[in-house]
Amino acid sequence: MFLTLEGVEGSGKSTLAQHLAGRLEQRGKTVLHTREPGGCLLGRDIRALLLDSGRAVEPRAELYLFLADRAQHVEEIIRPALGRGEWVICDRYADSTIAYQGAGRGMNSDWLQRLNDDATGGLWPDITFLLDLPEELGLERALRRNAESGLGKTEGRFEAETLAFHHRVRQGFLARAEAFPRRFNILDASLPPENVAEAAWNELIRHGFIEG
Amino acid sequence: MFLTLEGVEGSGKSTLAQHLAGRLEQRGKTVLHTREPGGCLLGRDIRALLLDSGRAVEPRAELYLFLADRAQHVEEIIRPALGRGEWVICDRYADSTIAYQGAGRGMNSDWLQRLNDDATGGLWPDITFLLDLPEELGLERALRRNAESGLGKTEGRFEAETLAFHHRVRQGFLARAEAFPRRFNILDASLPPENVAEAAWNELIRHGFIEG
Repeated sequence: MFLTLEGVEGSGKSTLAQHLAGRLEQRGKTVLHTREPGGCLLGRDIRALLLDSGRAVEPRAELYLFLADRAQHVEEIIRPALGRGEWVICDRYADSTIAYQGAGRGMNSDWLQRLNDDATGGLWPDITFLLDLPEELGLERALRRNAESGLGKTEGRFEAETLAFHHRVRQGFLARAEAFPRRFNILDASLPPENVAEAAWNELIRHGFIEG
Repeated sequence: MFLTLEGVEGSGKSTLAQHLAGRLEQRGKTVLHTREPGGCLLGRDIRALLLDSGRAVEPRAELYLFLADRAQHVEEIIRPALGRGEWVICDRYADSTIAYQGAGRGMNSDWLQRLNDDATGGLWPDITFLLDLPEELGLERALRRNAESGLGKTEGRFEAETLAFHHRVRQGFLARAEAFPRRFNILDASLPPENVAEAAWNELIRHGFIEG
Protein backbone atom coordinates (compact mmCIF):
# COMPACT_ATOMS: atom_id res chain seq x y z
CA MET A 1 0.00 0.00 0.00
CA PHE A 2 1.44 3.28 -1.15
CA LEU A 3 -0.28 6.31 0.34
CA THR A 4 0.69 9.92 -0.30
CA LEU A 5 -0.31 13.14 1.41
CA GLU A 6 -0.49 16.33 -0.60
CA GLY A 7 -1.51 19.91 0.03
CA VAL A 8 -0.27 23.43 0.54
CA GLU A 9 2.09 24.43 3.34
CA GLY A 10 0.54 24.20 6.77
CA SER A 11 -2.25 21.85 5.75
CA GLY A 12 -1.35 19.25 8.37
CA LYS A 13 0.27 16.53 6.26
CA SER A 14 2.88 15.47 8.84
CA THR A 15 0.35 15.36 11.65
CA LEU A 16 -1.98 13.19 9.60
CA ALA A 17 0.88 10.95 8.48
CA GLN A 18 1.93 10.36 12.09
CA HIS A 19 -1.64 9.64 13.13
CA LEU A 20 -2.24 7.15 10.32
CA ALA A 21 1.13 5.47 10.83
CA GLY A 22 0.41 4.99 14.54
CA ARG A 23 -3.07 3.66 13.94
CA LEU A 24 -1.89 1.26 11.20
CA GLU A 25 0.88 -0.02 13.47
CA GLN A 26 -1.72 -0.71 16.16
CA ARG A 27 -3.38 -2.91 13.56
CA GLY A 28 -0.08 -4.79 13.19
CA LYS A 29 1.01 -3.18 9.93
CA THR A 30 4.61 -2.24 9.27
CA VAL A 31 4.65 1.37 8.15
CA LEU A 32 7.39 3.38 6.49
CA HIS A 33 6.73 7.08 7.01
CA THR A 34 8.82 9.13 4.63
CA ARG A 35 8.76 12.42 2.75
CA GLU A 36 9.94 14.37 -0.26
CA PRO A 37 12.30 15.99 -0.65
CA GLY A 38 14.75 14.38 1.74
CA GLY A 39 13.50 10.82 2.24
CA CYS A 40 16.87 9.25 1.44
CA LEU A 41 20.50 10.09 2.12
CA LEU A 42 21.07 11.73 -1.26
CA GLY A 43 17.73 13.48 -0.88
CA ARG A 44 18.70 15.07 2.41
CA ASP A 45 21.63 16.72 0.66
CA ILE A 46 19.36 17.80 -2.19
CA ARG A 47 16.89 19.19 0.34
CA ALA A 48 19.76 21.18 1.87
CA LEU A 49 20.58 22.65 -1.55
CA LEU A 50 16.95 23.57 -2.10
CA LEU A 51 16.61 25.31 1.25
CA ASP A 52 19.86 27.26 1.17
CA SER A 53 18.58 30.69 0.25
CA GLY A 54 22.17 31.77 -0.48
CA ARG A 55 22.10 29.61 -3.59
CA ALA A 56 20.49 30.92 -6.74
CA VAL A 57 18.22 28.14 -8.01
CA GLU A 58 16.54 28.56 -11.39
CA PRO A 59 13.03 27.07 -11.77
CA ARG A 60 14.25 24.28 -14.07
CA ALA A 61 17.19 23.49 -11.81
CA GLU A 62 14.76 23.31 -8.90
CA LEU A 63 12.53 20.96 -10.89
CA TYR A 64 15.40 18.60 -11.74
CA LEU A 65 16.64 18.57 -8.15
CA PHE A 66 13.18 17.46 -7.00
CA LEU A 67 13.17 14.78 -9.70
CA ALA A 68 16.65 13.54 -8.70
CA ASP A 69 15.44 13.26 -5.11
CA ARG A 70 12.33 11.39 -6.25
CA ALA A 71 14.17 8.97 -8.52
CA GLN A 72 16.58 8.02 -5.73
CA HIS A 73 13.84 7.89 -3.09
CA VAL A 74 11.63 5.58 -5.16
CA GLU A 75 14.41 3.10 -5.98
CA GLU A 76 16.24 3.14 -2.65
CA ILE A 77 13.37 3.49 -0.16
CA ILE A 78 9.82 3.21 -1.49
CA ARG A 79 9.98 0.25 -3.89
CA PRO A 80 11.97 -1.94 -1.47
CA ALA A 81 9.48 -1.21 1.34
CA LEU A 82 6.52 -2.01 -0.91
CA GLY A 83 8.36 -5.16 -1.96
CA ARG A 84 8.57 -6.20 1.70
CA GLY A 85 4.79 -5.76 1.93
CA GLU A 86 4.95 -2.64 4.09
CA TRP A 87 2.69 0.38 4.05
CA VAL A 88 4.46 3.47 2.73
CA ILE A 89 3.13 6.87 3.77
CA CYS A 90 4.88 9.65 1.88
CA ASP A 91 4.56 13.33 2.75
CA ARG A 92 4.51 14.94 -0.73
CA TYR A 93 5.23 13.08 -3.96
CA ALA A 94 4.82 13.54 -7.70
CA ASP A 95 1.55 15.51 -7.49
CA SER A 96 3.42 18.28 -5.65
CA THR A 97 5.63 18.78 -8.70
CA ILE A 98 2.59 19.31 -10.89
CA ALA A 99 0.98 21.67 -8.39
CA TYR A 100 4.10 23.72 -7.53
CA GLN A 101 6.18 23.68 -10.72
CA GLY A 102 3.17 23.32 -13.01
CA ALA A 103 0.30 25.38 -11.61
CA GLY A 104 2.59 27.49 -9.40
CA ARG A 105 5.52 28.23 -11.70
CA GLY A 106 3.66 27.81 -14.98
CA MET A 107 5.52 24.83 -16.46
CA ASN A 108 3.63 22.56 -18.85
CA SER A 109 1.81 19.94 -16.82
CA ASP A 110 1.86 17.23 -19.54
CA TRP A 111 5.62 17.54 -19.65
CA LEU A 112 5.82 17.37 -15.85
CA GLN A 113 3.65 14.25 -15.94
CA ARG A 114 6.12 12.62 -18.35
CA LEU A 115 9.03 13.62 -16.15
CA ASN A 116 7.28 12.18 -13.11
CA ASP A 117 6.59 8.96 -14.98
CA ASP A 118 10.27 8.73 -15.82
CA ALA A 119 11.60 9.68 -12.38
CA THR A 120 9.27 7.27 -10.56
CA GLY A 121 9.56 4.47 -13.10
CA GLY A 122 5.76 4.72 -13.33
CA LEU A 123 5.09 4.23 -9.62
CA TRP A 124 1.96 6.11 -8.59
CA PRO A 125 0.23 5.90 -5.19
CA ASP A 126 -2.69 3.63 -4.43
CA ILE A 127 -4.37 6.48 -2.61
CA THR A 128 -3.64 10.18 -2.16
CA PHE A 129 -5.11 12.41 0.51
CA LEU A 130 -5.30 16.04 -0.55
CA LEU A 131 -5.48 18.21 2.54
CA ASP A 132 -7.31 21.15 1.10
CA LEU A 133 -7.13 24.52 2.79
CA PRO A 134 -7.48 28.19 1.83
CA GLU A 135 -3.95 29.32 1.03
CA GLU A 136 -4.04 32.23 3.49
CA LEU A 137 -4.78 29.90 6.38
CA GLY A 138 -2.10 27.39 5.33
CA LEU A 139 0.59 30.02 5.00
CA GLU A 140 -0.28 31.53 8.34
CA ARG A 141 0.01 28.12 10.00
CA ALA A 142 3.26 27.30 8.20
CA LEU A 143 4.94 30.57 9.09
CA ARG A 144 3.93 30.15 12.73
CA ARG A 145 5.28 26.61 12.75
CA ASN A 146 8.57 27.69 11.16
CA ALA A 147 8.99 30.50 13.66
CA GLU A 148 8.39 28.08 16.53
CA SER A 149 10.53 25.22 15.31
CA GLY A 150 13.25 26.70 13.11
CA LEU A 151 12.42 23.78 10.80
CA GLY A 152 10.69 23.65 7.47
CA LYS A 153 13.24 25.81 5.71
CA THR A 154 12.79 24.00 2.40
CA GLU A 155 9.17 24.93 2.53
CA GLY A 156 10.37 28.43 3.40
CA ARG A 157 11.52 28.64 -0.19
CA PHE A 158 7.90 28.41 -1.22
CA GLU A 159 6.51 30.39 1.67
CA ALA A 160 8.44 33.35 0.30
CA GLU A 161 6.23 33.18 -2.78
CA THR A 162 3.18 35.41 -3.18
CA LEU A 163 -0.32 34.49 -2.07
CA ALA A 164 -1.24 34.39 -5.78
CA PHE A 165 1.36 31.63 -6.23
CA HIS A 166 -0.13 29.60 -3.37
CA HIS A 167 -3.60 30.16 -4.77
CA ARG A 168 -2.46 28.64 -8.07
CA VAL A 169 -0.84 25.72 -6.21
CA ARG A 170 -4.07 25.00 -4.36
CA GLN A 171 -6.06 25.12 -7.59
CA GLY A 172 -3.42 22.86 -9.17
CA PHE A 173 -3.96 20.25 -6.47
CA LEU A 174 -7.74 20.47 -6.86
CA ALA A 175 -7.40 20.03 -10.63
CA ARG A 176 -5.23 16.94 -10.02
CA ALA A 177 -7.89 15.52 -7.70
CA GLU A 178 -10.53 16.11 -10.34
CA ALA A 179 -8.42 14.42 -13.02
CA PHE A 180 -7.74 11.33 -10.85
CA PRO A 181 -10.90 10.95 -8.76
CA ARG A 182 -10.37 7.29 -7.89
CA ARG A 183 -6.93 7.86 -6.40
CA PHE A 184 -7.55 11.24 -4.78
CA ASN A 185 -9.53 11.92 -1.63
CA ILE A 186 -10.00 15.55 -0.69
CA LEU A 187 -10.03 16.26 3.03
CA ASP A 188 -11.09 19.56 4.59
CA ALA A 189 -7.87 20.57 6.33
CA SER A 190 -9.47 23.54 8.05
CA LEU A 191 -11.16 21.10 10.44
CA PRO A 192 -9.44 20.08 13.72
CA PRO A 193 -6.66 17.49 13.15
CA GLU A 194 -8.60 14.70 14.88
CA ASN A 195 -11.54 15.19 12.55
CA VAL A 196 -9.24 15.17 9.50
CA ALA A 197 -7.62 11.98 10.78
CA GLU A 198 -10.99 10.32 11.36
CA ALA A 199 -12.13 11.23 7.86
CA ALA A 200 -8.92 9.81 6.37
CA TRP A 201 -9.25 6.59 8.37
CA ASN A 202 -12.83 6.15 7.22
CA GLU A 203 -11.71 6.60 3.61
CA LEU A 204 -9.15 3.81 4.06
CA ILE A 205 -11.93 1.56 5.33
CA ARG A 206 -14.33 2.60 2.58
CA HIS A 207 -11.70 1.73 -0.05
CA GLY A 208 -11.20 -1.66 1.59
CA PHE A 209 -7.53 -0.97 2.34
CA ILE A 210 -8.14 -1.81 6.00
CA GLU A 211 -10.97 -3.55 7.81
CA GLY A 212 -13.54 -1.42 9.59
CA MET B 1 30.32 31.99 -29.73
CA PHE B 2 29.50 28.91 -27.72
CA LEU B 3 32.12 26.18 -28.02
CA THR B 4 31.97 22.84 -26.21
CA LEU B 5 34.58 20.14 -25.72
CA GLU B 6 33.49 16.53 -25.47
CA GLY B 7 35.19 13.19 -25.17
CA VAL B 8 36.01 10.33 -22.86
CA GLU B 9 38.03 10.75 -19.68
CA GLY B 10 41.65 11.64 -20.28
CA SER B 11 41.10 12.92 -23.82
CA GLY B 12 42.66 16.31 -23.07
CA LYS B 13 39.59 18.55 -22.93
CA SER B 14 40.87 20.87 -20.17
CA THR B 15 44.26 21.27 -21.82
CA LEU B 16 42.67 22.16 -25.13
CA ALA B 17 40.22 24.55 -23.45
CA GLN B 18 43.06 26.39 -21.73
CA HIS B 19 45.02 26.59 -24.95
CA LEU B 20 42.10 27.94 -26.98
CA ALA B 21 41.09 30.40 -24.25
CA GLY B 22 44.64 31.80 -24.10
CA ARG B 23 44.93 32.10 -27.84
CA LEU B 24 41.52 33.76 -28.18
CA GLU B 25 42.40 36.24 -25.44
CA GLN B 26 45.59 37.09 -27.33
CA ARG B 27 43.26 38.01 -30.18
CA GLY B 28 41.43 40.37 -27.84
CA LYS B 29 38.41 38.14 -27.20
CA THR B 30 36.83 37.86 -23.77
CA VAL B 31 36.58 34.17 -22.94
CA LEU B 32 34.59 32.40 -20.26
CA HIS B 33 36.09 28.97 -19.62
CA THR B 34 33.65 26.82 -17.69
CA ARG B 35 32.66 23.19 -17.26
CA GLU B 36 29.93 20.73 -16.38
CA PRO B 37 29.16 19.62 -13.84
CA GLY B 38 30.20 22.36 -11.44
CA GLY B 39 30.31 25.55 -13.52
CA CYS B 40 28.12 27.50 -11.09
CA LEU B 41 27.72 27.71 -7.32
CA LEU B 42 24.78 25.29 -7.20
CA GLY B 43 26.61 23.07 -9.65
CA ARG B 44 29.66 22.78 -7.42
CA ASP B 45 27.45 21.37 -4.69
CA ILE B 46 25.81 19.02 -7.19
CA ARG B 47 29.25 17.95 -8.38
CA ALA B 48 30.15 17.17 -4.78
CA LEU B 49 27.05 14.95 -4.47
CA LEU B 50 27.94 13.14 -7.67
CA LEU B 51 31.52 12.45 -6.61
CA ASP B 52 30.81 11.32 -3.05
CA SER B 53 31.12 7.59 -3.44
CA GLY B 54 29.52 7.13 -0.01
CA ARG B 55 26.21 8.22 -1.54
CA ALA B 56 24.12 5.71 -3.42
CA VAL B 57 23.09 7.42 -6.66
CA GLU B 58 20.63 5.66 -8.95
CA PRO B 59 21.10 6.18 -12.71
CA ARG B 60 17.99 8.33 -13.03
CA ALA B 61 18.92 10.39 -9.97
CA GLU B 62 22.37 10.89 -11.51
CA LEU B 63 20.76 12.01 -14.76
CA TYR B 64 18.51 14.56 -13.05
CA LEU B 65 21.40 15.93 -11.00
CA PHE B 66 23.36 16.56 -14.21
CA LEU B 67 20.29 18.25 -15.71
CA ALA B 68 19.79 20.44 -12.63
CA ASP B 69 23.43 21.51 -12.89
CA ARG B 70 23.00 22.23 -16.61
CA ALA B 71 19.77 24.22 -16.22
CA GLN B 72 21.34 26.44 -13.58
CA HIS B 73 24.64 26.75 -15.45
CA VAL B 74 22.96 27.82 -18.69
CA GLU B 75 20.76 30.47 -17.09
CA GLU B 76 23.22 31.81 -14.55
CA ILE B 77 26.53 31.62 -16.43
CA ILE B 78 26.40 30.71 -20.13
CA ARG B 79 23.50 32.80 -21.48
CA PRO B 80 24.60 35.99 -19.68
CA ALA B 81 28.17 35.59 -21.03
CA LEU B 82 26.89 35.02 -24.57
CA GLY B 83 24.63 38.04 -24.10
CA ARG B 84 27.70 40.13 -23.26
CA GLY B 85 29.26 38.97 -26.53
CA GLU B 86 31.87 36.74 -24.90
CA TRP B 87 33.23 33.45 -26.10
CA VAL B 88 32.11 30.56 -23.89
CA ILE B 89 34.25 27.42 -23.82
CA CYS B 90 32.54 24.66 -21.87
CA ASP B 91 34.25 21.43 -20.85
CA ARG B 92 31.42 18.88 -21.32
CA TYR B 93 27.82 19.79 -22.05
CA ALA B 94 24.61 18.18 -23.24
CA ASP B 95 26.29 15.68 -25.59
CA SER B 96 27.98 14.07 -22.59
CA THR B 97 24.55 13.19 -21.19
CA ILE B 98 23.65 11.39 -24.39
CA ALA B 99 27.00 9.57 -24.52
CA TYR B 100 27.21 8.61 -20.83
CA GLN B 101 23.59 8.15 -19.76
CA GLY B 102 22.40 7.15 -23.22
CA ALA B 103 25.07 5.02 -24.87
CA GLY B 104 26.81 4.22 -21.56
CA ARG B 105 23.89 3.47 -19.25
CA GLY B 106 21.40 2.51 -21.92
CA MET B 107 18.78 5.22 -21.50
CA ASN B 108 16.72 6.22 -24.52
CA SER B 109 18.62 8.87 -26.46
CA ASP B 110 15.52 10.57 -27.91
CA TRP B 111 14.23 11.05 -24.40
CA LEU B 112 17.62 12.41 -23.29
CA GLN B 113 17.58 14.80 -26.23
CA ARG B 114 14.20 16.14 -25.08
CA LEU B 115 15.47 16.49 -21.52
CA ASN B 116 18.54 18.35 -22.78
CA ASP B 117 16.35 20.66 -24.86
CA ASP B 118 14.30 21.41 -21.77
CA ALA B 119 17.23 21.84 -19.37
CA THR B 120 19.14 24.12 -21.76
CA GLY B 121 16.10 26.02 -22.99
CA GLY B 122 17.18 24.90 -26.46
CA LEU B 123 20.72 26.32 -26.27
CA TRP B 124 23.11 24.19 -28.31
CA PRO B 125 26.75 25.01 -29.08
CA ASP B 126 27.91 26.72 -32.26
CA ILE B 127 30.76 24.25 -32.49
CA THR B 128 31.76 21.11 -30.60
CA PHE B 129 35.17 19.50 -30.60
CA LEU B 130 35.05 15.79 -29.96
CA LEU B 131 38.42 14.64 -28.66
CA ASP B 132 38.33 11.07 -29.85
CA LEU B 133 40.57 8.49 -28.25
CA PRO B 134 40.61 4.73 -27.75
CA GLU B 135 38.96 4.21 -24.38
CA GLU B 136 41.89 2.21 -22.96
CA LEU B 137 44.27 5.08 -23.58
CA GLY B 138 41.89 7.68 -22.15
CA LEU B 139 41.26 5.71 -18.97
CA GLU B 140 44.97 5.10 -18.46
CA ARG B 141 45.64 8.84 -18.77
CA ALA B 142 42.75 9.77 -16.51
CA LEU B 143 43.72 7.34 -13.77
CA ARG B 144 47.31 8.59 -13.87
CA ARG B 145 46.10 12.19 -13.67
CA ASN B 146 43.80 11.43 -10.73
CA ALA B 147 46.57 9.67 -8.88
CA GLU B 148 48.88 12.64 -9.40
CA SER B 149 46.43 15.40 -8.61
CA GLY B 150 43.84 13.98 -6.25
CA LEU B 151 41.35 15.80 -8.45
CA GLY B 152 38.85 14.54 -10.93
CA LYS B 153 36.83 12.58 -8.42
CA THR B 154 33.55 13.19 -10.21
CA GLU B 155 35.04 11.60 -13.23
CA GLY B 156 36.24 8.88 -10.87
CA ARG B 157 32.61 7.85 -10.67
CA PHE B 158 32.78 6.96 -14.34
CA GLU B 159 36.33 5.69 -14.27
CA ALA B 160 35.10 2.94 -11.97
CA GLU B 161 32.95 1.69 -14.83
CA THR B 162 34.06 -1.16 -17.08
CA LEU B 163 36.03 -0.74 -20.28
CA ALA B 164 32.91 -1.93 -22.11
CA PHE B 165 31.03 1.04 -20.66
CA HIS B 166 33.70 3.45 -21.89
CA HIS B 167 33.68 1.78 -25.27
CA ARG B 168 29.94 2.45 -25.53
CA VAL B 169 30.48 6.07 -24.43
CA ARG B 170 33.10 6.59 -27.13
CA GLN B 171 30.80 5.09 -29.75
CA GLY B 172 27.99 7.28 -28.41
CA PHE B 173 30.08 10.40 -28.99
CA LEU B 174 31.01 9.26 -32.49
CA ALA B 175 27.34 8.62 -33.30
CA ARG B 176 26.51 12.13 -32.08
CA ALA B 177 29.22 13.56 -34.33
CA GLU B 178 27.78 11.66 -37.26
CA ALA B 179 24.26 12.91 -36.51
CA PHE B 180 25.37 16.57 -36.27
CA PRO B 181 28.24 16.84 -38.75
CA ARG B 182 28.08 20.62 -39.12
CA ARG B 183 28.42 21.28 -35.39
CA PHE B 184 30.87 18.48 -34.54
CA ASN B 185 34.56 18.36 -35.35
CA ILE B 186 36.37 15.18 -34.46
CA LEU B 187 39.96 15.62 -33.31
CA ASP B 188 42.44 12.78 -32.90
CA ALA B 189 43.21 13.07 -29.20
CA SER B 190 45.96 10.46 -29.35
CA LEU B 191 48.18 13.09 -30.99
CA PRO B 192 50.40 15.37 -28.88
CA PRO B 193 48.40 18.21 -27.25
CA GLU B 194 50.04 20.91 -29.41
CA ASN B 195 48.93 19.12 -32.57
CA VAL B 196 45.39 18.73 -31.24
CA ALA B 197 45.34 22.43 -30.37
CA GLU B 198 46.61 23.39 -33.81
CA ALA B 199 43.98 21.28 -35.50
CA ALA B 200 41.25 22.86 -33.36
CA TRP B 201 42.48 26.36 -34.09
CA ASN B 202 42.50 25.64 -37.81
CA GLU B 203 38.92 24.41 -37.57
CA LEU B 204 37.87 27.68 -35.95
CA ILE B 205 39.48 29.54 -38.85
CA ARG B 206 37.96 27.22 -41.44
CA HIS B 207 34.49 27.82 -39.96
CA GLY B 208 35.08 31.56 -40.09
CA PHE B 209 34.73 31.95 -36.33
CA ILE B 210 38.11 33.69 -36.20
CA GLU B 211 40.33 35.22 -38.87
CA GLY B 212 43.28 33.22 -40.10
